[in-house]
Amino acid sequence: MQQLDPQHDGWPEKVRASFARQSLMMLFGAEIVDLAPGRVTLGAPITPDVLQQHGVAHAAFGFALGDTAAGYAALTLMGAEDEVMTAEIKTNLLAPAAGDRMEAVGEVVRLGRRLIVVTASLRVHGAKGWRDVALMQGTMVPVPAG
Amino acid sequence: MQQLDPQHDGWPEKVRASFARQSLMMLFGAEIVDLAPGRVTLGAPITPDVLQQHGVAHAAFGFALGDTAAGYAALTLMGAEDEVMTAEIKTNLLAPAAGDRMEAVGEVVRLGRRLIVVTASLRVHGAKGWRDVALMQGTMVPVPAG
Amino acid sequence: MQQLDPQHDGWPEKVRASFARQSLMMLFGAEIVDLAPGRVTLGAPITPDVLQQHGVAHAAFGFALGDTAAGYAALTLMGAEDEVMTAEIKTNLLAPAAGDRMEAVGEVVRLGRRLIVVTASLRVHGAKGWRDVALMQGTMVPVPAG
Amino acid sequence: MQQLDPQHDGWPEKVRASFARQSLMMLFGAEIVDLAPGRVTLGAPITPDVLQQHGVAHAAFGFALGDTAAGYAALTLMGAEDEVMTAEIKTNLLAPAAGDRMEAVGEVVRLGRRLIVVTASLRVHGAKGWRDVALMQGTMVPVPAG
Repeated sequence: MQQLDPQHDGWPEKVRASFARQSLMMLFGAEIVDLAPGRVTLGAPITPDVLQQHGVAHAAFGFALGDTAAGYAALTLMGAEDEVMTAEIKTNLLAPAAGDRMEAVGEVVRLGRRLIVVTASLRVHGAKGWRDVALMQGTMVPVPAG
Repeated sequence: MQQLDPQHDGWPEKVRASFARQSLMMLFGAEIVDLAPGRVTLGAPITPDVLQQHGVAHAAFGFALGDTAAGYAALTLMGAEDEVMTAEIKTNLLAPAAGDRMEAVGEVVRLGRRLIVVTASLRVHGAKGWRDVALMQGTMVPVPAG
Repeated sequence: MQQLDPQHDGWPEKVRASFARQSLMMLFGAEIVDLAPGRVTLGAPITPDVLQQHGVAHAAFGFALGDTAAGYAALTLMGAEDEVMTAEIKTNLLAPAAGDRMEAVGEVVRLGRRLIVVTASLRVHGAKGWRDVALMQGTMVPVPAG
Repeated sequence: MQQLDPQHDGWPEKVRASFARQSLMMLFGAEIVDLAPGRVTLGAPITPDVLQQHGVAHAAFGFALGDTAAGYAALTLMGAEDEVMTAEIKTNLLAPAAGDRMEAVGEVVRLGRRLIVVTASLRVHGAKGWRDVALMQGTMVPVPAG
């Protein structure tokens, strides 16, 4: 298991400031639930505005939380001025996203110099408690400052 | 090349009615640009509300259009009462989604009884005209009526 | 967490017999290391015949073990006469596969009636012990008998 | 559409020499069918040694040809001393690979400085002629010399 350590003390503030600049996250009412090195949890309410045709959360709503959580999981491990971007990500849907709240846990699986492999898991809080609804696996690319 | 023919005359109305029920598509101001058997084009404005932290369209905005276009491309070929759902889909990002409008073209690659393989390509209209920004490949599952 | 129970007592023999019919597994000298409901481990030597141009195991060698392990993880949970087939699978490579032996652990993440979501992780035994070299995520489709 | 030009005259020889060093390709009896900048076609016989349990070509056999074709499609566009490696790749299976010969066409979709997005399509020659059997989409990473 690879050791995953932040490179500078300001990593939580950096992630929070970057997250606040994502207008789509604000549109969705998303918030940071938990921040740890290599692991970020985001949450958002499933409102009447983010549904697909059958009345459950649109896959893109889950994608938004999962991709963003995974990206920030990677960003917690970058240098103070570095950024990351999504290269690719894949989602397998496990169950309909029926409920009132979704959470995404993004995690770094492998931190490389050129590529950062990440996963995200999505769960929805519904009538029967929390349920896993999707699993994502992808690649973030470090974008060094300057 | 597989022949892709609709199974009933009402397929365009069925797709339009289903699309209108997707509240996330309405939130994004998305619209159907073109409907053909096995091929659906959607478009939406890139507004200040759908951005990531660097000021371009969030990957989830593109995912929303691409996944939906691919799903409806599959739906054009289903029976009058059938539905489809996304099983899985993967996105490779090709370029930052900087511009004022995004379009997604969803297409059926292989129509099977159990699985429908689809692709979607995303393009953004910016200062230099249209640019390809992402490529998606995934699987839709037919959900027979009743 | 979903309960994953076999549907018939003969599931280990069924998996072993099916595995023995895979000529590619025999060509690679692969063997079943461990069988459990929803979880199958395969192993094979990395011989001079399965390399890529830089002298480490070809990604396809790992794909062979991972896809097969994931497929049999699904098969452990099927009925006595049912089969499964791979619908799609994605691999993220984590490190070069340098070493003398590879093992793949395939697991069922979600058992559905139409789709079975699986993962596989690949590790290689080299000079410094075991190392994770790839992560796979995919979909198996149940093929009911008759 | 991006212009895809080789960076040095020796690109065909470089690809052929690298291909000849892949022992797995030799084991499979694979050969280069066609080389063009950004587009490589490989072919191999489907022998009794590369099958899965139902007697058709194993998915890993197709993966081997498709991943390799896509990697060399990328390599045709690199500098004389550069290499590429697969970061990730996804396969959707379209039909059982029943037949006597498989071919894979790998193509570069987007050539970037950090990432090269590729696709590969697999076809099998069987009793009814050529049939598409799989579609792949992935990412190659340039590895600069030195």
